[in-house]
Amino acid sequence: MSGWLAIAGMGPGDAALITPEVTAALAEATDIVGYGPYVSRVTPRAGLALHASDNRVEIERSRHALELAAAGHRVVVVSSGDPGVFAMAAAVFETLEQGPAAWRDLDIRVLPGITAMLAASARAGAPLGHDFCAINLSDNLKPWDLIERRLRLAAEADFAMAFYNPRSKARPEGFARALEVLREACGGERLVLFARAVCTPEESLRIVTLADARPGMADMRTMVIVGSSQTRLIERPGAPILYTPRSAP
Amino acid sequence: MSGWLAIAGMGPGDAALITPEVTAALAEATDIVGYGPYVSRVTPRAGLALHASDNRVEIERSRHALELAAAGHRVVVVSSGDPGVFAMAAAVFETLEQGPAAWRDLDIRVLPGITAMLAASARAGAPLGHDFCAINLSDNLKPWDLIERRLRLAAEADFAMAFYNPRSKARPEGFARALEVLREACGGERLVLFARAVCTPEESLRIVTLADARPGMADMRTMVIVGSSQTRLIERPGAPILYTPRSAP
Repeated sequence: MSGWLAIAGMGPGDAALITPEVTAALAEATDIVGYGPYVSRVTPRAGLALHASDNRVEIERSRHALELAAAGHRVVVVSSGDPGVFAMAAAVFETLEQGPAAWRDLDIRVLPGITAMLAASARAGAPLGHDFCAINLSDNLKPWDLIERRLRLAAEADFAMAFYNPRSKARPEGFARALEVLREACGGERLVLFARAVCTPEESLRIVTLADARPGMADMRTMVIVGSSQTRLIERPGAPILYTPRSAP
Repeated sequence: MSGWLAIAGMGPGDAALITPEVTAALAEATDIVGYGPYVSRVTPRAGLALHASDNRVEIERSRHALELAAAGHRVVVVSSGDPGVFAMAAAVFETLEQGPAAWRDLDIRVLPGITAMLAASARAGAPLGHDFCAINLSDNLKPWDLIERRLRLAAEADFAMAFYNPRSKARPEGFARALEVLREACGGERLVLFARAVCTPEESLRIVTLADARPGMADMRTMVIVGSSQTRLIERPGAPILYTPRSAP
C-alpha cells in the first residue's frame, strides 16, 4: 500500500506562514480533503482532486480521507492554523479508532502549522509570553458548565487565556456569559485582545479592558486573548504593544 | 530611520518547519542576534553579522538588538519554536518598555513559529486536541509555589498540560515534585508524553503513565505533555497514537 494521510496546518491565512513541510505534502498529494474555505486555499492542478465539505461534518470528512488513503491515495486533510488545536487531527483519530482495524496500518502524519492564538499574539506583541491556557468556547462538544468552571479555574491560576470559537452559532449568548464570569473573576481592568481575521487582508486588532469588552466585538473569525494580572500595554506612536512579562511575583 | 527588528521563531529544529516569512526576514537582515545554538542555525553570508550570546542573558541580548535596530540595522532576533511562547518576544518588550523613548518608534515585528508543544503534539498524535494549558516549569522567574498552585488548578480544570523547561538546572528536584503533585491530583493512570529533541535527528518519543513517569525521563530538550482525563492511546503496528478527543462529558 503506497497511500498516506497527512493532516496539515495551513496557518492563519497568509501563504508566507505555511511551512515548507506542508507545501511539500500538498505538492505530492493526489487528494485534498477539508472544509470548503480551507480547500480553496490549495492551488488546483492536474491530477489533484479537491474534496470540499461543509462545516460540522468532521467525522464524515475524516472517514472519507481514511478510505481514500486506504485505497492507495496520497491524501492531505487541510486545517486552518494547527491541525492539533481545535481542528481536524483529533477528529481523524476519533474516526480511526472506531474504524476498521486495517486503518491502523496506514501511514498517517500530522504536519503542524501556525495556530491562530500564536498568530494573534505575534501581531499584538507577546500576550502569551508567560503561562497560559487555550479554551474552545464552543459548547457544541462539551457542556457549558465545564467551560465556566475552566474559566474560573484559569482565572484563579492567573493564566493568560486564548479563546477559540468565542461565539458559537448554536449559543450566541455564551460569549456574553463568559465575559461576565471573567469580569467577576479577574476584575474590569484586565486587558483583552480581539484579533479578527489575523494575517488576512481583513485583519483588525482591538485591545480593551474587560470592563469595556462587548460580546459583539467577537465573531467566529475572532481570536480573543485575555491577559493575566501581569499583562501590560506599551503605548507608542504606532499600534500599542500588548505583552505578558516572563516573570511573575 | 530604515532599521527594523524582527523577533523570529525558527521552529523546533527542522528547516522544513521554518515559515517563508521567517526565511525572508533572515534574507533581508544585516544582523542576527540570539542564543548561540539558534544563531548557528542561520546560514552565514557576506554582509550578515552573527551575534551569538549565552543562555540567560535575554535582557542584554534584547538591548543589543534594539540598539542595532535604532542605529539603522535590519535585525532578526532568533528564538527556537515560537518567539511568543517562553522565548525572546517578552524579553525584548520588557527591555523596550524600560529603555529610551526613541525605541518606541522602531519598526518591530514578531514572526510566529512552530512552538515545541505543537511539534511534539503532532509527532505523537493530537494530545492537545481539546482545552489545554502551557506552563514553564522553570522557577528562575517565578516562585515554585505558584507553579504548584497552577498544576493543581490545571488538574482540577482537567486541562491537558504542556510543560516547557521541565528540569531547571537551578532546581533539578522541581520536576520530581511536579510529578508528585500531578500523581496526587490526576491519579497514576494519566498518560504522559516525553518528547525529546522533536524534529531533530535525535528525536525520541516515550509515552508512559504518571505512575511510571520518572524525573530522569526529561531534560531541558524535552517537552512533557500530560493528558487530560479523556486522553487516549490507539495501539497499532507502528508507534501508538496519543490523542485527546474533541468532546468532553
